[in-house]
Amino acid sequence: MPSAVGITLEQAQAAVTAAHKKAVAIETLMNIAVVDAGANLVAFAHMDGAWLGSIDISQKKARTARYFDMPTGAIGGLSQPGGPLFNIEHSNGGLITFPGGVPITDASGEVIGAIGVSGSTVENDHAVAEAGAAAVK
Amino acid sequence: MPSAVGITLEQAQAAVTAAHKKAVAIETLMNIAVVDAGANLVAFAHMDGAWLGSIDISQKKARTARYFDMPTGAIGGLSQPGGPLFNIEHSNGGLITFPGGVPITDASGEVIGAIGVSGSTVENDHAVAEAGAAAVK
Amino acid sequence: MPSAVGITLEQAQAAVTAAHKKAVAIETLMNIAVVDAGANLVAFAHMDGAWLGSIDISQKKARTARYFDMPTGAIGGLSQPGGPLFNIEHSNGGLITFPGGVPITDASGEVIGAIGVSGSTVENDHAVAEAGAAAVK
Amino acid sequence: MPSAVGITLEQAQAAVTAAHKKAVAIETLMNIAVVDAGANLVAFAHMDGAWLGSIDISQKKARTARYFDMPTGAIGGLSQPGGPLFNIEHSNGGLITFPGGVPITDASGEVIGAIGVSGSTVENDHAVAEAGAAAVK
Repeated sequence: MPSAVGITLEQAQAAVTAAHKKAVAIETLMNIAVVDAGANLVAFAHMDGAWLGSIDISQKKARTARYFDMPTGAIGGLSQPGGPLFNIEHSNGGLITFPGGVPITDASGEVIGAIGVSGSTVENDHAVAEAGAAAVK
Repeated sequence: MPSAVGITLEQAQAAVTAAHKKAVAIETLMNIAVVDAGANLVAFAHMDGAWLGSIDISQKKARTARYFDMPTGAIGGLSQPGGPLFNIEHSNGGLITFPGGVPITDASGEVIGAIGVSGSTVENDHAVAEAGAAAVK
Repeated sequence: MPSAVGITLEQAQAAVTAAHKKAVAIETLMNIAVVDAGANLVAFAHMDGAWLGSIDISQKKARTARYFDMPTGAIGGLSQPGGPLFNIEHSNGGLITFPGGVPITDASGEVIGAIGVSGSTVENDHAVAEAGAAAVK
Repeated sequence: MPSAVGITLEQAQAAVTAAHKKAVAIETLMNIAVVDAGANLVAFAHMDGAWLGSIDISQKKARTARYFDMPTGAIGGLSQPGGPLFNIEHSNGGLITFPGGVPITDASGEVIGAIGVSGSTVENDHAVAEAGAAAVK
């Protein structure tokens, strides 16, 4: 029997679909990535014309959010010059620590994965990521 | 104005859906990746319980198929010891040259992207990739 | 049938030639790189005696400009400590976010590639990149 | 005064132009890279529609030829299973050891750089590389 690592493909695709819908609603072009509890890619979508450089960033945001089980922006607040986690971005093959990545939890509150979004302002990226995460029950 | 690079998200998702359906039909667990004409990731799906190591392999197969506009297995036939392309796999950050990656063409025959599938035997991987590519009109 | 990905070699070489001419005119030694719409290298020139370290930087500037369809310096303004995109440079295998990279558009305004220049001050790098991009009709 | 490292840009561009002309003559689509005596990229051209995966391979062939001052195919004969240099391709960030890379020498016979060509059969790649190298006096 195959072993699951948190989020299912069905849940991940629901998150991508909800994030995509939100991106359209706020008139942005996004890259949307969902990883499982092992920080492995489960689902991804690049909207037509979205920034090519954000393909990688969205995946790094999703992994960063799961690596530390917190929104990526929370880490960015600690990684500034003089901060306690200065330049943590050098680890794990490259982290992205500005907003746009959030953990995904199940009904019991356990982290089962994370979603990362990139393609607009960090405020928009975060809003779209939240919309995606909220679609997972 | 956003610029497109070959395949659209709608086409890429149609390829993923068709490949997924084929994978279920032949009772396999697959990772399915679609890249655009610039070899950038457009859509991805990891079936529950599919090999984690195949997440990367499926993407490398898709890129390899687009890099050379041919099925990945055709390259593998030439990269064997004593063959003309021995160890070509060391280029481009790592190629995968066994079957499972195929170019995706539009109605005019132009290559607009590629699909890479990994998770079972190379015969099954190739069959699922073909099913995905065939879904793009 | 070969598929094009934006800019042609003829256009890219015209951009390199114009940039080279500008570099000579302002008495600088430059590295000049042009990528296509998929961020793949199309043409490159290293002027005799130009900084060796700028060979890579010019290519990263070109890719960065295409990845986000804006001049590289615009990103650098946002990636400073405390800025919204702090340390974005860790993505995509390394970005360069100071001036010297600009998108290349066709007559319709669509982005078909980008040029990156490195070898002098960032003001000079940007001026030479602009001269190169302007040569593409 | 800037320091030269072997081949000049003028010589490198002459090699690229001659190789390009040869590629057209034999009806192939090539990627052509020239490196200096320090194995740094000096000039590059990607012909429209040439394999995207060969952008990297042509550069690796050029560097490999200069790293060891011999045609790349000569190294490939030694890197086979059981051979004295088995899997040497793992060094230097990836070597390419099949034909298509050749050193470039000046009138005195000193190696001043190398050219790497990729996009067709290894025989064609090598023929185009030879045509490019022969254009440097």
